[in-house]
Amino acid sequence: MMMNERAWRSFERGRWAQDEVDVRDFIQRNYTPYEGDSAFLAPATEATKALWAQVMELTREERARGGVYDADTKIVSRVNSHGAGYFNKDLEKIVGLQTDAPFKRALMPFGGIRMAEEALKMYGYELDGEVKEIFSKYRKTHNDGVFDAYTPEMRLARHAHILTGLPDTYGRGRIVGDYRRVALYGVDYLIKKKEEDKAQLAGDMTPDKIRDREEIAEQVKALKQLKEMAACYGFDLSRPAETAQEAVQWLYFGYLAAVKDQNGAAMSIGRNSTFLDIYIQRDLDEGTLTEEAAQELIDHFVMKLRVVKFMRIREYNELFSGDPTWVTESIGGMGVDGRTLVTKNSFRILHTLVNLGPAPEPNLTVLWSKRLPRAFKTFCAEISIQTSAIQYESDDLMRPEMGDDYCIACCVSSMRVGKDMQFFGARANLAKCLLYAINGGKDELCCDKAGNPLQVSPEFAPVLGDGALVYEDVLKKYDQMMTWLAGLYVNTLNVIHYMHDKYCYEALEMALHDSKVRRFFATGVAGLSCAADSLSAIKYAKVYPIRNEKGIVTDFKIEGDYPKYGNNDDRADEIAVWLVKTFMNKVSSHFTYRESVPTMSILTITSNVVYGKKTGNTPDGRRAGQPLAPGANPMHGRDHNGALASLESVAKLPYDYSRDGISNTFSITPNSLGKDDD
Amino acid sequence: MMMNERAWRSFERGRWAQDEVDVRDFIQRNYTPYEGDSAFLAPATEATKALWAQVMELTREERARGGVYDADTKIVSRVNSHGAGYFNKDLEKIVGLQTDAPFKRALMPFGGIRMAEEALKMYGYELDGEVKEIFSKYRKTHNDGVFDAYTPEMRLARHAHILTGLPDTYGRGRIVGDYRRVALYGVDYLIKKKEEDKAQLAGDMTPDKIRDREEIAEQVKALKQLKEMAACYGFDLSRPAETAQEAVQWLYFGYLAAVKDQNGAAMSIGRNSTFLDIYIQRDLDEGTLTEEAAQELIDHFVMKLRVVKFMRIREYNELFSGDPTWVTESIGGMGVDGRTLVTKNSFRILHTLVNLGPAPEPNLTVLWSKRLPRAFKTFCAEISIQTSAIQYESDDLMRPEMGDDYCIACCVSSMRVGKDMQFFGARANLAKCLLYAINGGKDELCCDKAGNPLQVSPEFAPVLGDGALVYEDVLKKYDQMMTWLAGLYVNTLNVIHYMHDKYCYEALEMALHDSKVRRFFATGVAGLSCAADSLSAIKYAKVYPIRNEKGIVTDFKIEGDYPKYGNNDDRADEIAVWLVKTFMNKVSSHFTYRESVPTMSILTITSNVVYGKKTGNTPDGRRAGQPLAPGANPMHGRDHNGALASLESVAKLPYDYSRDGISNTFSITPNSLGKDDD
Repeated sequence: MMMNERAWRSFERGRWAQDEVDVRDFIQRNYTPYEGDSAFLAPATEATKALWAQVMELTREERARGGVYDADTKIVSRVNSHGAGYFNKDLEKIVGLQTDAPFKRALMPFGGIRMAEEALKMYGYELDGEVKEIFSKYRKTHNDGVFDAYTPEMRLARHAHILTGLPDTYGRGRIVGDYRRVALYGVDYLIKKKEEDKAQLAGDMTPDKIRDREEIAEQVKALKQLKEMAACYGFDLSRPAETAQEAVQWLYFGYLAAVKDQNGAAMSIGRNSTFLDIYIQRDLDEGTLTEEAAQELIDHFVMKLRVVKFMRIREYNELFSGDPTWVTESIGGMGVDGRTLVTKNSFRILHTLVNLGPAPEPNLTVLWSKRLPRAFKTFCAEISIQTSAIQYESDDLMRPEMGDDYCIACCVSSMRVGKDMQFFGARANLAKCLLYAINGGKDELCCDKAGNPLQVSPEFAPVLGDGALVYEDVLKKYDQMMTWLAGLYVNTLNVIHYMHDKYCYEALEMALHDSKVRRFFATGVAGLSCAADSLSAIKYAKVYPIRNEKGIVTDFKIEGDYPKYGNNDDRADEIAVWLVKTFMNKVSSHFTYRESVPTMSILTITSNVVYGKKTGNTPDGRRAGQPLAPGANPMHGRDHNGALASLESVAKLPYDYSRDGISNTFSITPNSLGKDDD
Repeated sequence: MMMNERAWRSFERGRWAQDEVDVRDFIQRNYTPYEGDSAFLAPATEATKALWAQVMELTREERARGGVYDADTKIVSRVNSHGAGYFNKDLEKIVGLQTDAPFKRALMPFGGIRMAEEALKMYGYELDGEVKEIFSKYRKTHNDGVFDAYTPEMRLARHAHILTGLPDTYGRGRIVGDYRRVALYGVDYLIKKKEEDKAQLAGDMTPDKIRDREEIAEQVKALKQLKEMAACYGFDLSRPAETAQEAVQWLYFGYLAAVKDQNGAAMSIGRNSTFLDIYIQRDLDEGTLTEEAAQELIDHFVMKLRVVKFMRIREYNELFSGDPTWVTESIGGMGVDGRTLVTKNSFRILHTLVNLGPAPEPNLTVLWSKRLPRAFKTFCAEISIQTSAIQYESDDLMRPEMGDDYCIACCVSSMRVGKDMQFFGARANLAKCLLYAINGGKDELCCDKAGNPLQVSPEFAPVLGDGALVYEDVLKKYDQMMTWLAGLYVNTLNVIHYMHDKYCYEALEMALHDSKVRRFFATGVAGLSCAADSLSAIKYAKVYPIRNEKGIVTDFKIEGDYPKYGNNDDRADEIAVWLVKTFMNKVSSHFTYRESVPTMSILTITSNVVYGKKTGNTPDGRRAGQPLAPGANPMHGRDHNGALASLESVAKLPYDYSRDGISNTFSITPNSLGKDDD
């Protein structure tokens, strides 16, 4: 209690301080909205410059070494597995590395020992024999569990890539701990609350309740490990943070523990800048911090987020067209009470793009509202023009559903910080599914061992003959194929998430969530515009199937033109809308693990390239192997009616049926806006 | 198929050979009932005598070394963890040891690393540091899982010993693989059938279905390991056994794999002697085997069962008054078609008690029927008189419910071989529960840290005042306390069995079961006769409570006499019947794990001593710490009306409410039967 009094001096008390974990309440009562401009910002300090030069030097050397600077082959990464590591202890205001040395990648075998071994091999390292034995003989991994339970049909669909990118060989990620809790409450209090939550799980001991009790026990262990990890660096995380520096440090330690514990596909960090502004503002007011020192804290914090690295296999890098970590930080937005959530610290964190130069990570995401302060909008525009490194998402669209303390996981998935989590589910390829409908579930590209087309779905009736495809016939067959695909997809994900919980549970991240969380069961579709255009072609033009020697339709002859999605033409756009609604409804009709809420995304920022590679010629004229359009984008070059019409088409897609987000990759040059910078 | 033809030559085909695993059908069609006498039996061979002398010498040395001859401290025991081990390779007709050397106990940490370490320490061994680290940091154990999920109330009830002997620090056991399947079908076929069963688990992937699919995957891995283990000894278990020697060897390898995989409290072996007789009879008929050689096979088989050993902790040995392995073999019985299931081999296996001398293991259990062949009954009586080493159970009582291919697990739990399994559940102490009813759930022996009586149940209203106890008042309080105890008991077991499945799954044993098994949720009661006599005393005599300085009733003054259970006096016996029915009904009212069928046993053969130690003075006049009566026995010395009346009282207990079995420990001297041997 005395600890809290010191840490919480001058904070306005409320529900958050009345024995409830409620970070939003703390923010609402204590933050200072900022409507001014960027004039107050400070440049990088000498320490920042020196450290960043060191990072850049290591990055160059990393590239010279083929992509990996150094890798741990023996110590299994856990929250408290390594001793302290530094770039330069004297200069760093915010400390903590994933291992005991900069740029040394951690060994994370809980997801799958073969993947860990393969990733090391790729870069010339050899996995320690003892670790390999432990994770082969004694400690089963997520990957082993999944493949023990998969059905042959699941393996087949995965092999044929009608389901692609399933998180069965990598961590599902998309779980964002509320790292602010570490700073605001200290770890001992969080442990106490978890113990209380566990005590609530009483009564008949059903498997669900036993699992929940065990998970909280694991969360408490992870929190204790978090304290041990921080103690290596000389910090006592049992108590709340007392200064801005401690607040940033405590929060970062929470996040660092997460990336030591999990190699998730997207390890987003939440919505922290306004929270931290409260601590910074207090220290500024108390005269113990200068703006320059404040900026230095944020610069050093962001620097640490930029060097988060994982060992990953080639397939992963291909799927994601690189090796992203998706350290998404959500910035700004508006409060439900009408005040802006922009603070000076929203400026500071964007200003790191200037002080340290542009970078893809952390993925700085502005929650955009029409009502954001004008000066902040201007600043965002300036930084975007200068660095091309800001992502924007519609706060106005998400706030009604998610309130004003949600964040973005990965690129578009919104979740309330510490209250929601997501079971990430990769994607079903709707364009390929249409080809399956035409061919009765025989794959247009993959063959079995005998050289015959691979039968992936049950043997549904294919389209017969060589006459022009009949829209109603194809639609009926497509509907049936989507029914099959949605069921298979959901069940495959059920297996994956069951096993991820069993063998690779995110104890530390979940320790920083409420014990009763809302779980989203995220599905996704790829190839939406390709599928919509293909159906439009069949409906409005004449599309003749062309068969190979095995009778499989592998190409199409198109006679006449057809309306294309992306031109604000309802004839095509309505097909896209129908597709989204239909597939989502089919997904929703199935059992989903842990009473999760099914959602869908139309989201591929880069992986559409891989998806396209595995999809044959489509009835819209797209050639086999060519990329699908990213996310909800129209097919490349088909949106003839200008930017506005293209955006209008995308905007028709019903958010209610794709609550996990709709992405549209859209490049604007100054010229296309009609004015240049001067 | 060719393999099967050779192995199955001259066997009558039936369902068992029509792509169904059905050992009972094989037995029914092929066994030769034997109604003759024991004259055919052969004495021990020279090889048998030499090997047994070696076992006895090792046993003496084991005793000299304080109870353990040697112990593995490094190699974690799995089905295929060790190379071949022999007593004397040239003499052994049936080979296979738990480790690579005779009397060297295996290291089995999956149940709990602390128990494994402690057991080693007891005998002066030190657990390998690496193994300790693996099972502390990477591989969670059953014991760790249980204690993560236990509620404080469960820990308290366990600490106070109102629930005693819970399998949370040792393996639950009581699972009997159908080891005959290994011999009859060979392992490859069993794997094929398991793969087929797995394929049946399709449709919506609920957690239950995912778990079942994963378990079958683990079973298949265990079967493959079984083949590897046998290959070390030079045997190819992929195919069926072709001779009697192979049949015994194959069957024993199946069992050996089980005791390498699991350190269960009762590792019973099933009902094998009549099955094996079919193979022996065929070889005898074909002239490839003599009676002497047949007896040698069985002698060597039994010798191996006698040397099954586990490393166990002191608490375990105290609980079980020793270190039993409960290698129960069920012998004889009658078929549902009226033929006896006694064969020559039923004689041979009992004859091992002569050839090798008496021994408690394997626990040779005759399934007794009034209709057993007279000569076999005579033989059993002779061997019993000679060795005191046969257990008898009522086949006539169990057959109507269980059919004619059930066996006994441990001492009284009946289950259909390969079709049923049991979640073993130790016992609730009904005598202590009565004291809790009187004291409102405050323990009569245990105190909290402040020295106050430990409140174990919720604070129910205690008996007030110093007047004589009022039967109706005590009964109402007792009923309420039993309601609480039954609920807590069932939920504690739910936690235990969930975690046993999760961290110490019996993959090999379950691989030798049907994939769809019936599961029994076994509970048990201790102190039945003490509780019944106590209630009888309160009802029919005057019982005054005596309180200690804290107000806890810790003793009783009894005025007058009362009817006692065990004298065929309905006044007391009906109370015992009421207790059994009431507690079983309360148990049945709760959720039980994996749709298991709740059962109850009235069974303590030795552990009643420990239970008594933890129970204060009781209203029947029993002094604190004195043993409770074993199982359903009357309290020692209170059955004044003779043996028949005593047995009549026990026989009143309703089997329908104690389907897991009722034990009565009953010693008869020749004198008490009125005649001596001559």
